Amino acid sequence: MSIITDVITEYYRIPLPEIMEDAKHGLHTHFEVPIVKITTDDGRTGVGYTYTGGFGGKAISSLIANELTAILIGKDPSCVESLWDQMNWGIHYVARGGLASFAIAACDIALWDLRATKAQEPLYKLLGGVSNQVKCYGGAIDLNFPLEKLLANNQKYLDMGLKAVKIKLGQATLAEDIQRVAAVRELIGPDVTFMVDANMSWSVETAIKAGREFLKYNILFLEEPTIPEDYAGYRRIAEESGMAVAGGENLRTLTEFQHMLQYGHVDFPQPDASNIGGITGWLKVAHLTQAYNLTVSSHGMQELHVSLLAAMPNAGYLEMHSFPIDQYTTRPLVIDPASGMAIAPEEPGIGVTFDWQKLAPYQAEF
Amino acid sequence: MSIITDVITEYYRIPLPEIMEDAKHGLHTHFEVPIVKITTDDGRTGVGYTYTGGFGGKAISSLIANELTAILIGKDPSCVESLWDQMNWGIHYVARGGLASFAIAACDIALWDLRATKAQEPLYKLLGGVSNQVKCYGGAIDLNFPLEKLLANNQKYLDMGLKAVKIKLGQATLAEDIQRVAAVRELIGPDVTFMVDANMSWSVETAIKAGREFLKYNILFLEEPTIPEDYAGYRRIAEESGMAVAGGENLRTLTEFQHMLQYGHVDFPQPDASNIGGITGWLKVAHLTQAYNLTVSSHGMQELHVSLLAAMPNAGYLEMHSFPIDQYTTRPLVIDPASGMAIAPEEPGIGVTFDWQKLAPYQAEF
Ligand SMILES: [Mg+2]
Ligand SMILES: [Mg+2]
Repeated sequence: MSIITDVITEYYRIPLPEIMEDAKHGLHTHFEVPIVKITTDDGRTGVGYTYTGGFGGKAISSLIANELTAILIGKDPSCVESLWDQMNWGIHYVARGGLASFAIAACDIALWDLRATKAQEPLYKLLGGVSNQVKCYGGAIDLNFPLEKLLANNQKYLDMGLKAVKIKLGQATLAEDIQRVAAVRELIGPDVTFMVDANMSWSVETAIKAGREFLKYNILFLEEPTIPEDYAGYRRIAEESGMAVAGGENLRTLTEFQHMLQYGHVDFPQPDASNIGGITGWLKVAHLTQAYNLTVSSHGMQELHVSLLAAMPNAGYLEMHSFPIDQYTTRPLVIDPASGMAIAPEEPGIGVTFDWQKLAPYQAEF
Repeated sequence: MSIITDVITEYYRIPLPEIMEDAKHGLHTHFEVPIVKITTDDGRTGVGYTYTGGFGGKAISSLIANELTAILIGKDPSCVESLWDQMNWGIHYVARGGLASFAIAACDIALWDLRATKAQEPLYKLLGGVSNQVKCYGGAIDLNFPLEKLLANNQKYLDMGLKAVKIKLGQATLAEDIQRVAAVRELIGPDVTFMVDANMSWSVETAIKAGREFLKYNILFLEEPTIPEDYAGYRRIAEESGMAVAGGENLRTLTEFQHMLQYGHVDFPQPDASNIGGITGWLKVAHLTQAYNLTVSSHGMQELHVSLLAAMPNAGYLEMHSFPIDQYTTRPLVIDPASGMAIAPEEPGIGVTFDWQKLAPYQAEF
């Protein structure tokens, strides 16, 4: 048995190549990457991380350094799911969900890195290995892109071989949204899968109206049409518009997903390991989606989610997101240009190895 | 119009007079009090705060200092509810509920302090002033008290004039819990109101069994019989045991209360301003409870909640909690010894003025 002897927390704040906008989170100028290094008494180190859209990363790092570290030190790193429970209950009163699910995620992913490297298995095999690849779509934070730039960006995805794309909605008028949807469908042709994402910006009645308008453009799903807590609203939107609905990037616990599925409605659940308590939390949601006879997809963090999704019997879609964390690793996301599938890494561990030299300029105090 | 020019965050970690235990949060050795001082360009300062059971206060302070401060600086402090919305949405992606509701609480309470001092009104009047007093019960974190000490502690409450007491449940066996309930009922006699609190420690079926056993001791409510997300479980416990159920100290947003009331069941909702987004968040929950034809009670922070509850048309009970924040203010909670009612302060502002000299030894870096 080995023992956790050290937990090091590092905080990185990385500027985006260009300022991006969505309908509800406003302008994005940076993304943050809190990183956790867990060391054991037999000299092994596991690396985990989470990310944000530019806010809250310092508080996440503080929670890891001041609370979660104390829970982990001296424990057996092999018992990942038990440690996940101990972290969740250890800070439950101030934490349950919300920001804590990011902090726990970073630690949990580091523990999975230790587990997978010890097993000498790539993550996708350790989790079941149904496949080593998964369907992938390009999804930019493109709400403020002029139409010409929007089309050029989606053409770029097609040139990469991707067979699916997603755009942001939530313009000042529904007519503008419809115009952009029509133009992108025209560009990509009838055979490319097309999704749209309103980032919680609509009322339920607006979303129903919008969903009905989009039916004729053969949209796979309408993502986050309204705020994530409005379970009854999600149900109404799906039932009354006839449009399939996606969501999950703003749900922070297993029970929030359970409530959405029990009381609300989501056709394409999209948990994000970085904000749902890591790989352990993501797997629990993936099993829940299977229980509901649904696929599981992902949000962000494509360099890690590719391994999680490839492993699943009910894999949906991998989102290739605009926060390019993978550009700061030794293996940016690999897309097979013929099939458009994303390919999981074969190296033992979580398959996400940071390029520390590239990251170094962006490290900051927290 | 005045403008917020400065937001100062301070962190205090205060040892408890004795180590205390409940069924799910384990041992308590300290409590934490993050304090926010908001200054305006016309030279006024409002003071707000939140508290924890010993964990997470540094991350809360970090979130205030690094994110909420930037949202507040330069804004008009009079528009409290708008600032509450801006804080919530400004950190929504990492935040919604959880730890963020503590950080927003501290800022919101400071804004209410500015509002009430500017109006030259005591808080209970500014909020409606239905009364200047409210029913109060003594509730210790007493799970590990031997029976003799448990009885002595409740005798102390009776000696203060209190007409209601609450004890913790969740001993190793239900028989031990029943023994303690029986002994306390014997001590306090038939006319004192008696509540019990299981701190989420039970399964639903255990809670139903326990609730039925307690019926004969004339218990006003069974608090937090199981985990706060199990809405269906709360409904079953209330319906199948016949025991009234209380809860809310672990709900962090208005919609979590709405879901508990819509999908679950709580007879005595107990929002805590320190963890539900401050006075603004607490008031929204209080209005929701009125819509459901229920009273509103409180958890912790008696020195502030006394003013909130006294103001309400549907006031339930004020909890006099074991974290003695009020001992570090210039006006510890005032109980009328004849009626057992808690009396709201008459001074303009939120009525919570810290004794900075007494607090000073406990200030720490965060
Ligand atoms: Mg999205
Ligand atoms: Mg309680």
